[in-house]
Amino acid sequence: MKRYRNGEIWDFEQEMQQQLLGDGFCEEREVILGLDGDTTCTVCVCMPLLPFADSLPDPPPILSRAVAGCSNHNCVGETAARDALELVMADALSKAGSTRFCVQAVCLAVSGVNHPTDEERILNWLREIFPSHVQFFVQNDAVAALASGTMGKLHGCVLIAGTGTIAYGFTEDGRDARAAGAGPVLGDWGSGYGIAAQALTAAVRAYDGRGPYTALTSNILRKLDLSSPDELIGWTYSDPSWARIAALVPVVVSCAEGGDEVANKILRDAVQELASSVKAVVRRLRLCGEDGNDPFPLVMVGGVLEANKKWDIGREVINCIHKDFSGVHPICPKVEPAIGAALLAWNFLARYSRRETLRSETYSS
Amino acid sequence: MKRYRNGEIWDFEQEMQQQLLGDGFCEEREVILGLDGDTTCTVCVCMPLLPFADSLPDPPPILSRAVAGCSNHNCVGETAARDALELVMADALSKAGSTRFCVQAVCLAVSGVNHPTDEERILNWLREIFPSHVQFFVQNDAVAALASGTMGKLHGCVLIAGTGTIAYGFTEDGRDARAAGAGPVLGDWGSGYGIAAQALTAAVRAYDGRGPYTALTSNILRKLDLSSPDELIGWTYSDPSWARIAALVPVVVSCAEGGDEVANKILRDAVQELASSVKAVVRRLRLCGEDGNDPFPLVMVGGVLEANKKWDIGREVINCIHKDFSGVHPICPKVEPAIGAALLAWNFLARYSRRETLRSETYSS
Repeated sequence: MKRYRNGEIWDFEQEMQQQLLGDGFCEEREVILGLDGDTTCTVCVCMPLLPFADSLPDPPPILSRAVAGCSNHNCVGETAARDALELVMADALSKAGSTRFCVQAVCLAVSGVNHPTDEERILNWLREIFPSHVQFFVQNDAVAALASGTMGKLHGCVLIAGTGTIAYGFTEDGRDARAAGAGPVLGDWGSGYGIAAQALTAAVRAYDGRGPYTALTSNILRKLDLSSPDELIGWTYSDPSWARIAALVPVVVSCAEGGDEVANKILRDAVQELASSVKAVVRRLRLCGEDGNDPFPLVMVGGVLEANKKWDIGREVINCIHKDFSGVHPICPKVEPAIGAALLAWNFLARYSRRETLRSETYSS
Repeated sequence: MKRYRNGEIWDFEQEMQQQLLGDGFCEEREVILGLDGDTTCTVCVCMPLLPFADSLPDPPPILSRAVAGCSNHNCVGETAARDALELVMADALSKAGSTRFCVQAVCLAVSGVNHPTDEERILNWLREIFPSHVQFFVQNDAVAALASGTMGKLHGCVLIAGTGTIAYGFTEDGRDARAAGAGPVLGDWGSGYGIAAQALTAAVRAYDGRGPYTALTSNILRKLDLSSPDELIGWTYSDPSWARIAALVPVVVSCAEGGDEVANKILRDAVQELASSVKAVVRRLRLCGEDGNDPFPLVMVGGVLEANKKWDIGREVINCIHKDFSGVHPICPKVEPAIGAALLAWNFLARYSRRETLRSETYSS
């Protein structure tokens, strides 16, 4: 990534200011930034600040979108993480023909935000970058995924199943709960990594004589360009990346669709695991109401759930949850998590504004 | 480890030679070296070369024992691995009052020997160190563990269950087979790592609301000096060492003995996994004969099997194997694997000598 000298990244604002003055504009449009960051990249969208009296249009209007590298400080260190965030926000504002002075709120949902200290560090970075009037909201990336399906409303549950898996839920009065998301050693078995690791294990077991024959063996070996199950050991431990192993999920799905019983069992078990994460969150937050039948949104995100083939893992997970909670209302988000983050910022501002209005009415009455 | 200049490590031999001459000895005693190396240390024992006509005394006579660091080239690199091997052999010979010229055979059973290239590299090191008359045998470390229970005879099956697990077997006519030993990603679930990872998972699941209450949670947290199951995620991923996680096995055993159902299920599953590895090897090699009732030795090695508490994992594994193969004859080795390696070398030499005798008789008749 190109390194900018202090502040140089924002030089475009001066030119833009002069251009706006030249064009005779007297007031600039107020905007909101929404950011979503995982371990591979960071996305920032710029959205106009719509009036709080109206409901949000669907799809929400987006002025611009920018992409930068990883902003998870655990992966790339603090300097690179901060640089990625500043770069992606400057890029989005520049593309939108806007500046930092037009920004009313920033909602930043990045992986690696687990402790109040993580949140405080990011808030300090944002305070250095933006004028003092800007409001900041720092969240875990699962929260942006939920908001991407609920038009920014923090209510319901989100199930993410990509390389890893997590279920995260919120009640309307602000309580939250999570399940899974603890990584493979601690049993995230419905994740892409979990499914693929089970498939690799099944191939080794069949070769050892500990498990039944499975078509997974030949299909995985072909996919990895290996000639014997012996070589799977070396392949597996040569690179500790979970995503590399999770990339074998499509092989498992196609074997299951071809009728392989071992592959089918792995996917059925994954469905139970994913459903049990959601059920645990729903139960703890009583999202289903006292009688267990209240409707609640379930936002479904991630490669494992989106496959939508003959063997549709996402659909089976919903069926399994529906048996216990008939009010489940599944949502496949039509917008990306960064837009979810922007919508979240809009909702926070709207709530704040309603509270202010209420307060001034109370004073004047 | 202290580094020796080329050959300096063997300086003791000259002094010993002069001393022997001074004492009026005309012939030196012939010896054998047995080495066992895992990822933590390397052990070498020096054994006198006993006459092949006699059967081996039990326990076998050992002249000396030496210990050095890790000799697995995958862990410490080639130079350090070679240095560790040379140091431990020189130390054992020096302690036995012997020299390289007295050595008739070296059996080296070290972890990390999986391919012919690994074997060839170690053979080259040994050829540089010893005179040309010395015979070398390079094996996987599971083979020394088997030999430690069978007085050096390569027949039967060995089950190792420490941090990892593997089952390895040999027929009397030299065929071999293995099961498991593929590491945690590929499903070595009966291993110490496997048992402990399941226990950690159970604690996280109980906390999430995905699994039942278990006494494992409070006992693991107390053992690790943590205050909340949340902190288990950070603890688990802060250090990728499998042995660190496997060290939690005693907590699981004591919870199971205290009546915890989740801990009991983890141990029962581990028993099934370990037994299934042995059964797969026995079946493939037909160690149980055609009718399935022939006797065969099963050598049991490693912390998971040796606990010998109220909840005795090793005993349960044997019971489980006995149901399918009534001829199983369990052996807990009375000697360490390095002695197994020395006995193996003696057996190889004895077989070689019998073949030579047979050949000379054929010529003379």
